[in-house]
Amino acid sequence: MPNVNTIALDAMGGDQAPPMVIAGADVARKRYPNTHFLIFGDDALCGPLLRRFSRLAAVAEVVHTEDIVAADAKPSVAVRRGRKSSMWLAINSVAERRANAVVSAGNTGALMAMSKLILKTLPGISRPAIAGLIPTRRSESVFLDLGANIECGPENLIEFALMGGILARAVLGVIRPTVGLLNVGEEEFKGRNELREVANVLRSKDTLFDFHGFVEGDDLTTGTTDVVVTDGFTGNITLKTLEGVSQAYSDFLRRSLRSSLSARLGGMLARSAFRSLREKVDPRKHNGAMFVGLNGVAVKSHGSTDSLGFANAIGVAVDIIEQGVNERIISELSRIQSTETA
Amino acid sequence: MPNVNTIALDAMGGDQAPPMVIAGADVARKRYPNTHFLIFGDDALCGPLLRRFSRLAAVAEVVHTEDIVAADAKPSVAVRRGRKSSMWLAINSVAERRANAVVSAGNTGALMAMSKLILKTLPGISRPAIAGLIPTRRSESVFLDLGANIECGPENLIEFALMGGILARAVLGVIRPTVGLLNVGEEEFKGRNELREVANVLRSKDTLFDFHGFVEGDDLTTGTTDVVVTDGFTGNITLKTLEGVSQAYSDFLRRSLRSSLSARLGGMLARSAFRSLREKVDPRKHNGAMFVGLNGVAVKSHGSTDSLGFANAIGVAVDIIEQGVNERIISELSRIQSTETA
Repeated sequence: MPNVNTIALDAMGGDQAPPMVIAGADVARKRYPNTHFLIFGDDALCGPLLRRFSRLAAVAEVVHTEDIVAADAKPSVAVRRGRKSSMWLAINSVAERRANAVVSAGNTGALMAMSKLILKTLPGISRPAIAGLIPTRRSESVFLDLGANIECGPENLIEFALMGGILARAVLGVIRPTVGLLNVGEEEFKGRNELREVANVLRSKDTLFDFHGFVEGDDLTTGTTDVVVTDGFTGNITLKTLEGVSQAYSDFLRRSLRSSLSARLGGMLARSAFRSLREKVDPRKHNGAMFVGLNGVAVKSHGSTDSLGFANAIGVAVDIIEQGVNERIISELSRIQSTETA
Repeated sequence: MPNVNTIALDAMGGDQAPPMVIAGADVARKRYPNTHFLIFGDDALCGPLLRRFSRLAAVAEVVHTEDIVAADAKPSVAVRRGRKSSMWLAINSVAERRANAVVSAGNTGALMAMSKLILKTLPGISRPAIAGLIPTRRSESVFLDLGANIECGPENLIEFALMGGILARAVLGVIRPTVGLLNVGEEEFKGRNELREVANVLRSKDTLFDFHGFVEGDDLTTGTTDVVVTDGFTGNITLKTLEGVSQAYSDFLRRSLRSSLSARLGGMLARSAFRSLREKVDPRKHNGAMFVGLNGVAVKSHGSTDSLGFANAIGVAVDIIEQGVNERIISELSRIQSTETA
């Protein structure tokens, strides 16, 4: 009999929560039959919503919570005052081993702060990071940190590279992933001093990935490396830039194709071509950023996503559990540490 | 009789130099009839090329130079050893008032280092920046710094905001431009400490623009503000990300429209719609980054551009001269300084 995974859902986080969360869980239920759900949220709202999905209701349970973390709450405040929130209690169910992972579309900063406090950081990791999969011309790449660490020292970036490499093996299935360090030029003398220091360490390390060297902003879409490492400030701005351009491009294309009768006709004839383009860049398909470096699995969904996007974020959590990503990170870190102290 | 502007061209910089530079000058000649050109480069190459364009030859002169700055040369080395290069001598002609501006598609770091040394920084500006125009959903925005200053202190970002505001007035024709500071969130508590410090100063300053506050990566394409300010590390990576996504999107669209007979037919019918999309995002249209904060006009063209793109970079130089951008920056800076010391 296959393992049953239990996913804790923060039903109160996200622009369209809780309906989006519960409808998303129902989509995920069909995709991942051996999954149970713990739905943390206001029972008066979530109970009736869950009853609309009788098959989901058979594998899900609402855990009533009284409080909500506001989307614009300061993480430090949320951590102090949010102990009865759906977010806190959902994360806590992972720490208590009642769930294998938590998924939330709520306040990113609060989710990371609470996850660090409740789940704790993995041994050998000084700071967890947020990692996402971005679409590239080749396929997909792992990109981190997407915003957990606004200021990063060299040791953080080195840890991100290690964790990103392990993620790429587990999630992308690349045997020996290539890792690039985001910089303003490919030449070794370019960029910040600390990046040259990181590059020197990564070149010399005995790791399960190949360090490619520096990559630039356009290498993200080219897919030059399987993993792209940067600090959380640059990562967050770059990711939002990527999303913004994709969105602007699709909107402009849609408007252009309504601009005349022949454009409309052309758009209809080329519909399947456009569909493949839309699917390639559909942000919902790439929804679900992984918190890596924690002693437990936490996945962040976009706050503005819909139920299909949320189901994909649940899928990311299922993947991480089934691929044993955290276990792999732990064993690879201890292997490196034992090599270095040997 | 209208003023005649003289533009110095570094004929040896850029992937397709010198033919691209000279053909580009001929395109610019048609657009800006009152322009003369000083073409700095190897006479054995540039002389015969120029003779192909008889009308250009009537308003242009080749100044023979022996040396070339390599595309991958370290700026500090280029500055020491490149005194006989086309780049150095072209910049020098601006300092000697033989030309009103210099345009180069060569090594960006070397061009900035040489320009600082030869043209000197404007009084009141501690470091020059590279500014570009990026296409947005609304129209265009001024984006700086695009890579001149990898590490920036608060005072640099404040100066960039001032210069960006003046540029937006002069180049975009916005009477009272809005200025945003690129960050990982809009909330005041988000991001790096130094950015909060910069925001506080900009909010309190008596300037000719409106400080909007923090903006995020996706605000760049939305066009939330007329000016977006960031450090050269983030700006360079963000700009290259923008360019990379646009390029990937166009390529993917082109491939999709060849994928089947109906897609081909559709693409033909919708051709004019696609043309407007392509024109909107054509990187050549937005070619020509301005060096601001220098005592002279220097414009950097993309190294990989063609003659049309290079002509646009010449157009940027002509605009800056005719709008008196540098004079405006000087007078606005002295106005602010006199207010602050009063």
